[in-house]
Amino acid sequence: MAAFLIVMPTMKTAAWEKRIRAAQPDIDLRVWPEVGDPEEIVFALTWRHPHGTFKRFPNLKCIASMGAGVDNILSDPDLPAGVPITRIVDSSLAQSMTEYVVMAVLNYCRNARFFRDREAEGVWKPVIPKLAANEKVGILGLGQLGSDAARKLQTLGFTVAGWRRSQQPMAGVETFCGLSQFQAFLAATRILVNMLPLTAETRNILNRDTFTHLPPGAYLVNVARGEHLVEEDLLEAIAAGQLSGACLDVFRTEPLSQEHPFWAHPGITVTPHIASLTNPAAVIPHIMENYRRVLAGREAAHKVDCDRGY
Amino acid sequence: MAAFLIVMPTMKTAAWEKRIRAAQPDIDLRVWPEVGDPEEIVFALTWRHPHGTFKRFPNLKCIASMGAGVDNILSDPDLPAGVPITRIVDSSLAQSMTEYVVMAVLNYCRNARFFRDREAEGVWKPVIPKLAANEKVGILGLGQLGSDAARKLQTLGFTVAGWRRSQQPMAGVETFCGLSQFQAFLAATRILVNMLPLTAETRNILNRDTFTHLPPGAYLVNVARGEHLVEEDLLEAIAAGQLSGACLDVFRTEPLSQEHPFWAHPGITVTPHIASLTNPAAVIPHIMENYRRVLAGREAAHKVDCDRGY
Repeated sequence: MAAFLIVMPTMKTAAWEKRIRAAQPDIDLRVWPEVGDPEEIVFALTWRHPHGTFKRFPNLKCIASMGAGVDNILSDPDLPAGVPITRIVDSSLAQSMTEYVVMAVLNYCRNARFFRDREAEGVWKPVIPKLAANEKVGILGLGQLGSDAARKLQTLGFTVAGWRRSQQPMAGVETFCGLSQFQAFLAATRILVNMLPLTAETRNILNRDTFTHLPPGAYLVNVARGEHLVEEDLLEAIAAGQLSGACLDVFRTEPLSQEHPFWAHPGITVTPHIASLTNPAAVIPHIMENYRRVLAGREAAHKVDCDRGY
Repeated sequence: MAAFLIVMPTMKTAAWEKRIRAAQPDIDLRVWPEVGDPEEIVFALTWRHPHGTFKRFPNLKCIASMGAGVDNILSDPDLPAGVPITRIVDSSLAQSMTEYVVMAVLNYCRNARFFRDREAEGVWKPVIPKLAANEKVGILGLGQLGSDAARKLQTLGFTVAGWRRSQQPMAGVETFCGLSQFQAFLAATRILVNMLPLTAETRNILNRDTFTHLPPGAYLVNVARGEHLVEEDLLEAIAAGQLSGACLDVFRTEPLSQEHPFWAHPGITVTPHIASLTNPAAVIPHIMENYRRVLAGREAAHKVDCDRGY
């Protein structure tokens, strides 16, 4: 009568099922595509659902993203109107992403890629590192994820600036707001870290024009979405020396195909979308709390503003 | 009459000379081996001096190490008795070393080496990262360098313990003291970071017996001195699975010879002693202050306790 449906076709769901049942033993749990009676589905936990899935459930009260992003949900042209969408806002997601970002920034400053190549050759060649005290990191997106990274990079001694949609001051972080301050933000950034949500406004934001406004030799870290980046523009900017390189965890098509030029590019570090993997143990309490709220007719937490896109 | 001598045979000294003259234009500055009248030398700034050098200067009032370590000075069998020895205690040295240590620890947690190899093959293979919140870092040596690293690793979310000679509590860091608590410290450590001074007591401290008391699969980071590590014991411990790998910045013989097995070892990351390079601009004010103190007959700052060895 009030079934909980998991729609995660690209993932193994066993660990999720086990933990959801442990949290609520009497639950009527179903796993797509074994939906049963569509009228009984009231709550859907999802990641990369096939578009059109949700319109089949007339009594759906909540679509819960398994991660922090909801871009795949919102891009569904057949999304049922009026059904609240929630996303994960959890400190463990932010911590995991920050740890990746700090690693990527320090590897750049410390010439890790250069030393890796010398190591393969057995060649001892010291190079003076870039120290945090002299480096400016600019973070695109100062939400829960971006502000955690900003704080920790600051503690390490980096000068940190941030760019966000709306003004919201953050101690010690110079905050730039909206399109009118975008160029000023870029001009003050040597290491650009993208942590934006993917929306109509941010899609392709990492493009040739953006790179032109960074100081020459700037470095890019993308941990948000592949669709933020115009891939050819990155290759061009590195070839022209406008960027010195990039560390990328996300791609327009994942998995990245073996033939993709990013893999072998000497200036580009590729990791397989591991900056922030959702840990079921950490996020299931948030999801079950929303499930209970929905059953009780209350409002779900961390609802997405569909116009804003996150 | 009161000459300042630079004795740094392994380094280019031009940048040092320039800055020392800028700090004190009327200085009588000499660069080894162009010593002039040995009786006029009152102050020696040194790095890797040839043993026996200092006994030739009867009026020497201070031997100033260019770095944080003084092990090469103290190992000189002909060191003139009673001449104060100073070392560099500077926050920029600590910051630089901390940035390296954080990078090495995060690269381990994030399987950077694994992903680097997959990148070379063009293979997409996500692996769950180790998160800071679940990892225990143990720092050998909680002096100025070690405590800076401890604080910053803690801010990132790591559980941090430290081992030092004498009890001196540090907020949030479990501190183990002396030989009696060494095994307990090791048992509580998954990532062992060596930041000890090199002394008779710490030489070869990273040996088979030490590794045996770490939990199986522990990881080693050495940023102190090559002589702390028994190299064959490390290779054996990794082969046996007692250690999962190591990140090494210092070696018994530097530069590391091209034939050394560390270069090609899949579990060992090698960097060419770059964790903390002394920046002349940052440390010359400290050195010149000591030079002025010595000329004025006052005591130099950051004097080394020769019995303790640092």
